[in-house]
Amino acid sequence: MDLTYQNLNQLPTYGALIAEGKKPFSFSETLNADRVRSYEIITPLPAGETLLYNYGAKEVYDSTLNLLQKLAIEAQVIEKYEALLKGAIMNTGENRKVLHHLSRGQLAGPVSENGRDLGAFYRLQQERIAEFAEKVHDGRITAPSGKDFDTVVQIGIGGSDLGPRALYLALENFIGTPKLKAYFISNVDPDDPAAILNLLDPHTTLFILVSKSGTTQETLTNEVLVLENLKKAGVSEPRKQMICVTSETSPLAKSSDYLDSFFIDDNIGGRYSSTSAVGGAVLSLAFGPEIFEDLLAGASAVDKAALEPEVTKNAALMDALIGVWERNSKGYPFTAILPYSQALSRFPAHLQQADMESNGKQVNRVGQKLEYSTGPVIFGEPGTNGQHSFYQLLHQGTDIVPLQFIGFLRGQTGVDTEFQGSTSQTKLNANLAAQIAAFALGQKSDNPNKNFPGGRPSSLLYSERLTPRVLGALLAHFENKIMFQGFLWNVNSFDQEGVQLGKVLTNQVLGTGTIHPALEAYAKKLGAR
Amino acid sequence: MDLTYQNLNQLPTYGALIAEGKKPFSFSETLNADRVRSYEIITPLPAGETLLYNYGAKEVYDSTLNLLQKLAIEAQVIEKYEALLKGAIMNTGENRKVLHHLSRGQLAGPVSENGRDLGAFYRLQQERIAEFAEKVHDGRITAPSGKDFDTVVQIGIGGSDLGPRALYLALENFIGTPKLKAYFISNVDPDDPAAILNLLDPHTTLFILVSKSGTTQETLTNEVLVLENLKKAGVSEPRKQMICVTSETSPLAKSSDYLDSFFIDDNIGGRYSSTSAVGGAVLSLAFGPEIFEDLLAGASAVDKAALEPEVTKNAALMDALIGVWERNSKGYPFTAILPYSQALSRFPAHLQQADMESNGKQVNRVGQKLEYSTGPVIFGEPGTNGQHSFYQLLHQGTDIVPLQFIGFLRGQTGVDTEFQGSTSQTKLNANLAAQIAAFALGQKSDNPNKNFPGGRPSSLLYSERLTPRVLGALLAHFENKIMFQGFLWNVNSFDQEGVQLGKVLTNQVLGTGTIHPALEAYAKKLGAR
Repeated sequence: MDLTYQNLNQLPTYGALIAEGKKPFSFSETLNADRVRSYEIITPLPAGETLLYNYGAKEVYDSTLNLLQKLAIEAQVIEKYEALLKGAIMNTGENRKVLHHLSRGQLAGPVSENGRDLGAFYRLQQERIAEFAEKVHDGRITAPSGKDFDTVVQIGIGGSDLGPRALYLALENFIGTPKLKAYFISNVDPDDPAAILNLLDPHTTLFILVSKSGTTQETLTNEVLVLENLKKAGVSEPRKQMICVTSETSPLAKSSDYLDSFFIDDNIGGRYSSTSAVGGAVLSLAFGPEIFEDLLAGASAVDKAALEPEVTKNAALMDALIGVWERNSKGYPFTAILPYSQALSRFPAHLQQADMESNGKQVNRVGQKLEYSTGPVIFGEPGTNGQHSFYQLLHQGTDIVPLQFIGFLRGQTGVDTEFQGSTSQTKLNANLAAQIAAFALGQKSDNPNKNFPGGRPSSLLYSERLTPRVLGALLAHFENKIMFQGFLWNVNSFDQEGVQLGKVLTNQVLGTGTIHPALEAYAKKLGAR
Repeated sequence: MDLTYQNLNQLPTYGALIAEGKKPFSFSETLNADRVRSYEIITPLPAGETLLYNYGAKEVYDSTLNLLQKLAIEAQVIEKYEALLKGAIMNTGENRKVLHHLSRGQLAGPVSENGRDLGAFYRLQQERIAEFAEKVHDGRITAPSGKDFDTVVQIGIGGSDLGPRALYLALENFIGTPKLKAYFISNVDPDDPAAILNLLDPHTTLFILVSKSGTTQETLTNEVLVLENLKKAGVSEPRKQMICVTSETSPLAKSSDYLDSFFIDDNIGGRYSSTSAVGGAVLSLAFGPEIFEDLLAGASAVDKAALEPEVTKNAALMDALIGVWERNSKGYPFTAILPYSQALSRFPAHLQQADMESNGKQVNRVGQKLEYSTGPVIFGEPGTNGQHSFYQLLHQGTDIVPLQFIGFLRGQTGVDTEFQGSTSQTKLNANLAAQIAAFALGQKSDNPNKNFPGGRPSSLLYSERLTPRVLGALLAHFENKIMFQGFLWNVNSFDQEGVQLGKVLTNQVLGTGTIHPALEAYAKKLGAR
């Protein structure tokens, strides 16, 4: 099938969708137990696990869902996803394929570039990582000190940091005692590496330097700071306790100073690289390669389910379409992601990156200015913490913020206690259910200050327990949601030109040439010139 | 002077302000070195430190500033602040005074309630905390095991968690080696306490139970879980290594089981309680009471400066007015807080709470529905990390997000390295200056995907170094900004009725009575019924 790329407002159903958005919607008339039971999509994962997406508390009628189905067909979102899987150049601006799905499974035949099977290439890197990690774990690879490594530190920023960090934190307590405890250094603020180095034994710590280009200023600067610190501690060849994750064409790849190097390529963007060697190295070292394989298997199952053309059977597509509905028909400029799981404390920060960097665009995939809103602002913190913080505005503020809840029937650690007739886990989930109802239904009161307008839509992603497979599934769900939204908005979700100007101006400040007088004035104030 | 409370849109200048917002504004025509130098307010702090607020890159003309000055006079914001300091009932819904300023200094004479001098009461509690902390530090108070305490864990949620946690993290590396290392348990998710307890020696850890009412479900549940854990570890009287911070009327205050108790009262709201015993206990124990006193002194200096009626000399008021300008004249529904300091990693989360819980209201202080937007959505992460994440949307998204940068000339730890001709700290601040310029000025490009529209306003709060005094000053700056905005929007910034409905519905779920069928369906899915 030939693919056509039309802007959202050129699709035949767009007008009807905007009109549909003007229909009043009342949860008190709509939300009932049947709806809660039936507005749900189950995605099966390996080993009998599942990920469920419930949209009962979203402001959609069946007529809305019919329009969203039409929109998905008109925008050819499934066909575009298939083309992406087959290796089409979907990152138009940078003339690249988009292959993060391939890092966790081959769903549409082999993908080649310059005669190389890229699926095999990604798999080979993960096999090399697994072998390396096993050698570290069984003591065949030790620190130059002769001691076993007990700690691993990833040095990277953005896509080389937030995803792997969020996934590590999400599984650390599930695992209990990691094989290597992991830390992350990201910020060029020297107080960041200083604080982490302060926690470590330099003689038992393995470092992972992650930069696809091998030129990321923050990461190279922090490498130097770490190497100096190791030297001060008496390590004579500090790069011999450092491995690289980089592209084969980067300057880092050419160095034989490092203990080992593992490779990625330009077809996987930083924010989508958690399932490549960027996440694979640190997670395999911390938890063992078999845990990382489980995560990949969960992600791959979700990728496969996202090929389903019927929107009521495709959770990521439904989530994407409802997000576009909320953004363009309802006019909501933000979305909150609210996991009821402390393990997911940094998952919203990763999704903030994944979503806002992908779809925060104002031109379409061929550079034409768009006449409608694209990616929303994403923010979030775990519940129940957020209930005692910013939920006040979500309940009674002057704007409506659509919500995405995440929950689990059981905890990760098995620790629990009963107090006042219920366990902590039951309290946690009672709070979650109560919030969905409170936001949707509200409550009238004669005291206007105690009046809850309701009408605040939310969805619920949930599963039995936050296992490695479920975590991989959650990650892939959001990645695929973002991809589908990019197709609907007709933007290139895979480049990030918006970060370039800051880099150029930073180098101007650090250089000696003439710069804009206002920039110079700010730089002087901050001691940077 | 008699105070009158009018809604923002009833103030005489409101119409002119809305009209002013429709004037086009071009940074490329406006932003120059003179403006950067002169659009700045210096707030002096004790010991020669300063906090500077620069608004050169905000979309304001001198004519705008004149209107904002008029608005401040019409809304009587300084007079209302003075009344608050003197103990007026500013928390109308709950019929309470608002006295967090008094916890750090007396600026407007003594404040009494039922014959008690409340300033003296707050001071006494801090003196008791200081004495207790010193006894812990010098070994006069030890754990029941006879060992010295080396760790302190605060059990609290919302206002009893986010502020103290953000402040602890902000100073941990400044201090280097805390007297007691601090951790925080907040979430009713049992995996949260399980993970923290896993890190601790139960025989050398002091716990602080913080709940003003003494009835906070999460906190009491976590107390039980912690006590059980201590018992399992062989501690026979676990409450003898736990202190309370609570109100004198709470059930906790009546118990003699705890090692000691320190008191707060209902005139300081949770989100404003960091400078009361809620923050004082953990910070004095972790860093020493003299560090906490410095923090209070910095906050108090900023509180005093906020009494200045001239807006161009009052940083918190200017920040507040510009925020209202951006919200109501420009229509921006969000604000990002972007500290270029890893030490402030959780400061945006605290400010998200402080701001959104205070001003996320849709009725005025006497319960009438408002016809204009109030508090914005607040989010943020440290730079430079954010540059590699969500800044893409900030630069090139379809919405304009106003920005608040925070920076420091020097780092906290003194660790640094030179690479490619500049230090890490210089790179950090070069990035910060570059972002301000890039957001404001943008850059034209023939390639529309590389076009930066600019016109994205930002302010800059900065200081020489993030010391305890500067941290207190920053905290008070934002608290006062939020207070002034509440006066301008005519809302009660000091209650939080929006959190109540969720509590009621949670208890319904946990009870046995009939509940809304949709709520029951969600609760069943999540195993909570």
